[in-house]
Amino acid sequence: MLNTANITRERLGAEGLEWDNELSSHSAAFAAARDALLSRTDDESAMLGWVGLPEDAAMLAAAQKLAAQYAGKFDDLIVLGIGGSSLGGLAIITALQHPYRALQGKSGHGMRVHFVENVDGDSISALLEVLDPKRTLVNVISKSGTTTETMSAYLICKAWLEASVGANWSEQIVATTDPVKGVLRPMVAQYGFSALSVPPSVGGRFSVFSSVGTLPALLAGVDVAALLRGASRANQEFKTQSLSDNAAMQFALANILYAARGKNIVVLMPYSTRARFIADWFAQLWAESLGKIHRDGHRTGTTPVKAVGATDQHSVVQLFMEGPNDKLIAFVRFEAAGKETLIPNSEPTQPDMNYLANKSFQTLLNAEQAATANALRTMEKPNLTFALEALTAENLGWLMQTLMLSTAIVGEIWGIDAFNQPGVELGKKFTYALMGRPGFEDERKRLEAEGVTG
Amino acid sequence: MLNTANITRERLGAEGLEWDNELSSHSAAFAAARDALLSRTDDESAMLGWVGLPEDAAMLAAAQKLAAQYAGKFDDLIVLGIGGSSLGGLAIITALQHPYRALQGKSGHGMRVHFVENVDGDSISALLEVLDPKRTLVNVISKSGTTTETMSAYLICKAWLEASVGANWSEQIVATTDPVKGVLRPMVAQYGFSALSVPPSVGGRFSVFSSVGTLPALLAGVDVAALLRGASRANQEFKTQSLSDNAAMQFALANILYAARGKNIVVLMPYSTRARFIADWFAQLWAESLGKIHRDGHRTGTTPVKAVGATDQHSVVQLFMEGPNDKLIAFVRFEAAGKETLIPNSEPTQPDMNYLANKSFQTLLNAEQAATANALRTMEKPNLTFALEALTAENLGWLMQTLMLSTAIVGEIWGIDAFNQPGVELGKKFTYALMGRPGFEDERKRLEAEGVTG
Repeated sequence: MLNTANITRERLGAEGLEWDNELSSHSAAFAAARDALLSRTDDESAMLGWVGLPEDAAMLAAAQKLAAQYAGKFDDLIVLGIGGSSLGGLAIITALQHPYRALQGKSGHGMRVHFVENVDGDSISALLEVLDPKRTLVNVISKSGTTTETMSAYLICKAWLEASVGANWSEQIVATTDPVKGVLRPMVAQYGFSALSVPPSVGGRFSVFSSVGTLPALLAGVDVAALLRGASRANQEFKTQSLSDNAAMQFALANILYAARGKNIVVLMPYSTRARFIADWFAQLWAESLGKIHRDGHRTGTTPVKAVGATDQHSVVQLFMEGPNDKLIAFVRFEAAGKETLIPNSEPTQPDMNYLANKSFQTLLNAEQAATANALRTMEKPNLTFALEALTAENLGWLMQTLMLSTAIVGEIWGIDAFNQPGVELGKKFTYALMGRPGFEDERKRLEAEGVTG
Repeated sequence: MLNTANITRERLGAEGLEWDNELSSHSAAFAAARDALLSRTDDESAMLGWVGLPEDAAMLAAAQKLAAQYAGKFDDLIVLGIGGSSLGGLAIITALQHPYRALQGKSGHGMRVHFVENVDGDSISALLEVLDPKRTLVNVISKSGTTTETMSAYLICKAWLEASVGANWSEQIVATTDPVKGVLRPMVAQYGFSALSVPPSVGGRFSVFSSVGTLPALLAGVDVAALLRGASRANQEFKTQSLSDNAAMQFALANILYAARGKNIVVLMPYSTRARFIADWFAQLWAESLGKIHRDGHRTGTTPVKAVGATDQHSVVQLFMEGPNDKLIAFVRFEAAGKETLIPNSEPTQPDMNYLANKSFQTLLNAEQAATANALRTMEKPNLTFALEALTAENLGWLMQTLMLSTAIVGEIWGIDAFNQPGVELGKKFTYALMGRPGFEDERKRLEAEGVTG
């Protein structure tokens, strides 16, 4: 449920939105944009295959079957992936697995999952130093198989496994990649890796409900069926509700209206330590989808800022309150805790603390969220809140699909391609040039002329 | 060392800076601002006590003495703190301890450190469930002792310890707080806690080199003397160098100039997994210090955005490249890895990958940083780079003190108080009101009138 109370106030003055009027006046345009998106889901080149993933029972079954084969055989899972190949799984597993799974050792529920999402040799070598190669499964995730970072990490993991288990090393690799194309797919045939496919019509940052996200989540012990059920609920709402009822479209509308009023920043601030990486996952989704050069030449996109409540009330909220009015702030709150935990009443000599006695932590956390949202409103800082009953797999699935649908609608209304990322190509070419890859000699000369050598 | 090559280009056109000219024309103003700041360091009310912390041998000795007492007695350290009471320690320990210390179990070097920086009951109860209360030390850090989040967490940790070790529970608590005032200080006397002081002239977000940051770092096995040596080097440079040579002042100048040109976002993007929380620590430092209402009524501050390279090249860099030209991007790179790790050459059937063979991960990581910085330059996106020889305690200390000095200089030149945080008071009052604390009935009525009850 999206609570937009704090963006509707007349007191916003010159910048103020009459939210009910906005809903009425944009209703037809949003329905048309929604219908246009949905009409293209069967067109592979439209890259909208992600919309139907929550209802793709065959894809889930394939991941479940593979996960079942590994149950009990491994203690640790290394996920080699970057960007869309890691952030969704990381967000889900952090939210739904035991928050200190690493400290439970081998006895906890689900594998311990380690995301290698950087070419940081100190970090990778430290991980391989502490894991047991005989009890570790490696899931290498790259749709194209050409991701330099992922393939570099694959090479070192392969060598590490081979040194320990010899010729059977390939039994400890699962590849998640394009069904036909790319560099990883021929390795699957060559080495006999287990493999799952990423549908060609699903881009990385929209792939969380494909095997990219579901296999690591299953191995971590997450209820993936419930996750997809929630995502499917978001789909149903999107397909059947009008703008005045639909969270995905309303979130898109709020962003579009405030972006047009010069607010170039959108903050996502879940009030939950476990849900914190939802903000990281959203940052990629939003930034890479909407940060574009429009065909008319103007530059689109607002900058996502990650925050966590209540923690960041002691960090960025001072700026949100008193600084420039340049952002829309989106909160996520969960009404109930997973397990109610009370604040003990054990400092009788400190009567100033009595007000906390026997209240639940979740009550305090939610009071802080409501207090912050309303303090921001008094400063005319627009904000809205995704209010969910609890942090469950189903609600998380709903939230993530809702945010993907929102992102797609914004792209549709802005008239940009939300599913490509042409802006990162030059950086890749420059990297190849600096690494001496054949074919990039022109770029190398160009960099050398600027005095850049590595 | 600050590499400002990518902000000096004439090709920036209308927005372009002639950096050498800017250095000349601002040199006197920066020297004056620097001298004004330094002239107030002995004035306790100026809140500049943090400047001298790196040279405060007595404060370090007190923390070292206490840390030595605990050596071998505990496996785990829980740090209860939020904002400035946690982010500095978190950044340092994540950067300098073994990156997978939790997976090493009790046998690793230094205690395993767990930062409880939120009132998230699910997260706190999960932590207490997996730790051994007989082998866990709790460091409660709150300068005022009135921080609701920290004191709530203290209450539950106290009950947890007491249930296990009985009357000796207080021997497992160290309080880091004001030397005289506040709620925690009388508990020190009452229960006999070990205690360290936060100097009254040091605010939370500038407290990393006080006992707030040094005790957890020492217990984690960090070379804190080297850390402070690096911070002291930053001080010496700041005191003796002119703008044309000084990294702290140049970083301040770049921010001031681009903020004046409407760039309301500053990105800090370390190319290092281990150094990632430096960006979180910086976000608080920058946002809470500079997000202010100026006495003339205008609102100051730019919004810090956290990123990690190379990881976020697959996330936000598309937006940085093609999106609006609304940010200054600051990279941090380390020329050498802690331990050189080579990419094995083991896919002979994939000649496309040969260019990676036997190159080091750090070479690739730094090529990606240089590539990204220069790709951004071609899009006229201003960026600069802190280039350090390696991620060592000394260099980290230098970087953090440099960033604190930069922040202070920006506040000084903007004419704001960089050391208070008045904007968070209303949110605190609203929280108290929603939690039923006596004395906040007016705020409660005000919220109820808006339909807000918790």
